[in-house]
Amino acid sequence: MNPSDPAVPHPVPPLPLGFRMAGVRAGIKRDASREDVTLVASDLPATGAGVYTTNLVFAAPVAYDRALTPGRGFRGIVINSGNANACTGARGLDDARAMAAEAGRALGVAGEEVLVMSTGIIGEFLPLATITAGIAAAAAELGDGDTAAVTAARGMMTTDTRPKLAGSRFEADGSRYTLFGMAKGAAMIGPRMATMLGVLLLDAALEPDDAQRLLAEATEETFNCVSVDGHMSTNDTVLLLANGAAGGGTLHGAGLAACGRAIREACEHLAREMADDGEGATHVMRIEVSGCGSRDDARRIARAIADSPLVKTAVHGADPNWGRIVSAAGYAGVPFDPGRLELRLNGTLLFRGGTPVGFDPEAVSAGIQAARETLIEVSVGDGPGAIRFFSSDLTAEYVRLNADYHT
Amino acid sequence: MNPSDPAVPHPVPPLPLGFRMAGVRAGIKRDASREDVTLVASDLPATGAGVYTTNLVFAAPVAYDRALTPGRGFRGIVINSGNANACTGARGLDDARAMAAEAGRALGVAGEEVLVMSTGIIGEFLPLATITAGIAAAAAELGDGDTAAVTAARGMMTTDTRPKLAGSRFEADGSRYTLFGMAKGAAMIGPRMATMLGVLLLDAALEPDDAQRLLAEATEETFNCVSVDGHMSTNDTVLLLANGAAGGGTLHGAGLAACGRAIREACEHLAREMADDGEGATHVMRIEVSGCGSRDDARRIARAIADSPLVKTAVHGADPNWGRIVSAAGYAGVPFDPGRLELRLNGTLLFRGGTPVGFDPEAVSAGIQAARETLIEVSVGDGPGAIRFFSSDLTAEYVRLNADYHT
Repeated sequence: MNPSDPAVPHPVPPLPLGFRMAGVRAGIKRDASREDVTLVASDLPATGAGVYTTNLVFAAPVAYDRALTPGRGFRGIVINSGNANACTGARGLDDARAMAAEAGRALGVAGEEVLVMSTGIIGEFLPLATITAGIAAAAAELGDGDTAAVTAARGMMTTDTRPKLAGSRFEADGSRYTLFGMAKGAAMIGPRMATMLGVLLLDAALEPDDAQRLLAEATEETFNCVSVDGHMSTNDTVLLLANGAAGGGTLHGAGLAACGRAIREACEHLAREMADDGEGATHVMRIEVSGCGSRDDARRIARAIADSPLVKTAVHGADPNWGRIVSAAGYAGVPFDPGRLELRLNGTLLFRGGTPVGFDPEAVSAGIQAARETLIEVSVGDGPGAIRFFSSDLTAEYVRLNADYHT
Repeated sequence: MNPSDPAVPHPVPPLPLGFRMAGVRAGIKRDASREDVTLVASDLPATGAGVYTTNLVFAAPVAYDRALTPGRGFRGIVINSGNANACTGARGLDDARAMAAEAGRALGVAGEEVLVMSTGIIGEFLPLATITAGIAAAAAELGDGDTAAVTAARGMMTTDTRPKLAGSRFEADGSRYTLFGMAKGAAMIGPRMATMLGVLLLDAALEPDDAQRLLAEATEETFNCVSVDGHMSTNDTVLLLANGAAGGGTLHGAGLAACGRAIREACEHLAREMADDGEGATHVMRIEVSGCGSRDDARRIARAIADSPLVKTAVHGADPNWGRIVSAAGYAGVPFDPGRLELRLNGTLLFRGGTPVGFDPEAVSAGIQAARETLIEVSVGDGPGAIRFFSSDLTAEYVRLNADYHT
């Protein structure tokens, strides 16, 4: 790791107590200079929770983890990139179990105490010997410093251009806790979840059901509100391990609520990072929809806007083409009165009352060009339903990346 | 019109009896060399039917036509391109009525006997004086030959690279009839209908309810099974005028069924043409989904595949990346057993039984590169539900067209 690399977040968030990790170059990826196996160890048995893709076609590691979470007694997570172990049938499930068993051997624990994540190409069998060697190498390098965090986050990257890290500290019931998160995801980011993997590590103690609920609630409002290309993956997984190493007893009540806020913030940060690092993206779109009958209605409208190639190319071209945004809202399948729709772009009112509103298109265009983030605010009435949604623009580079490479 | 222009279909399908048309350069479009006002006249009062966008945000001409169809006594259609008359409020509806009244004046009939279509930029008021002058010019040039058909079809084009025409002849109850169709559409082609306009002209006599039913059934299986970018427009309209000029009495029974087949074939031809002329497209994707519980289920799976930017870029890159296709089917929201899914690409089996199938990727890639059409066949079981769906691939040129131009 080169600490002066501009792609590395600074400062690197600290690991919670009792966790160590490492990412190594095992040789699964064609580019031998990139990490592709990550090992996470918890010195204490941790409570584990998981949220997974809703795709009918789900990968072997999803099937493996789903059977084990929520639960107690987890000692680690093993992750590989470069191969998704998806659409690989019964042999794929055997391979996921073998990968967990190898990681367990390296950590001195049982295979069922280790969760598994894979990301990369669909439909090829895992190179188990390569992964086994990578696990042994990672186990020898486990650490709790910046290098450990950054190499571990790199080991889960595919077309991501940078590692995505999040961290926060919070107090609950008089004790201080640390939350650490890392994620990958740059394409196949869509409907619900994404080609994303996320890992959250916490040194507080949680009941399994509480951990699962906090993680599911946070995911609903963060990772489920991101879209790069609307394509839902086979491997999406977010795992939370809470090992209690900071002491202070199992969290309940107000302490649990503080923990939930920390988890939600870390997830939102990672979700926004995924949209910002969307393949070929030159803009991250923040879409705020309000005034709906429900949050689900707001999400449907936000998603129609977020997924429209015409909206995404307009943002890329710095074109305040509000007709594309308004028409996308209109086909979202959510009933509303178009005469009450109000649209603002980077704070400028573009449409209200069913007719064009006078605005300076050059100024709005210049504003889009000048900022990495484009804010699209849509209000459709006075209902309580609202959502924040992140997406990225669509560029020729996205097409090049996905037409020219077999990923 | 230059008859040697390779973009002009050859032969040009003949107009039905009793119809005349013309397209002229009125000056709505910035490029003064392109037709932008089209007038269609029926010498006899015609039965009229229409199918429209389901977008909540629909344009003024859609509101105008929807109130009049199905019905009898129509004498013409007036069409402009370059301006959609959408999101223009009460003034927009007045403008649509004024446009119909001007066309009626030019044809010597009442405004309510004329239907209206507009396509182009959203959110600007119609340039009525320009359109009025165009209507007068078109009325002076009405004809029933090839030039009339081609200029009329050009007058409804936006980013289309070529006019889209269809025609067929059929016999019913001992009489011979002619059906003529023209359409536009190259982007904002999505979910249900498209930024498309379609006109079907027929010299048979039909009851209004029969005309509506035949048009709606044909649309369901053709124009509603096309997607370029998944974005549903505000202006989508398909109109059918049947004027009975060929004699033979009103069609019923077997004659009506023969008429329905002709309408469906013309619509399918025009729908495929739209996908083939999709903005920036280098391939048209024909997606055949079968074995579903219902046709709607099959359509949902086909649409998820058709709309996925990852599938579309893979086809563009001639990459037999079946994982992207299988995972798109998996998130379509249709229950099926992934272990029973079979996928063929241009006839080659790529996936069956939940695991990879051996195939020669170079040969399949070469096959994609060699043909304009890519055939994707997905079977998910043995149910009766099946659909044929057309889409186009996603290219850097699509991004360039939509990022660089305000359309």
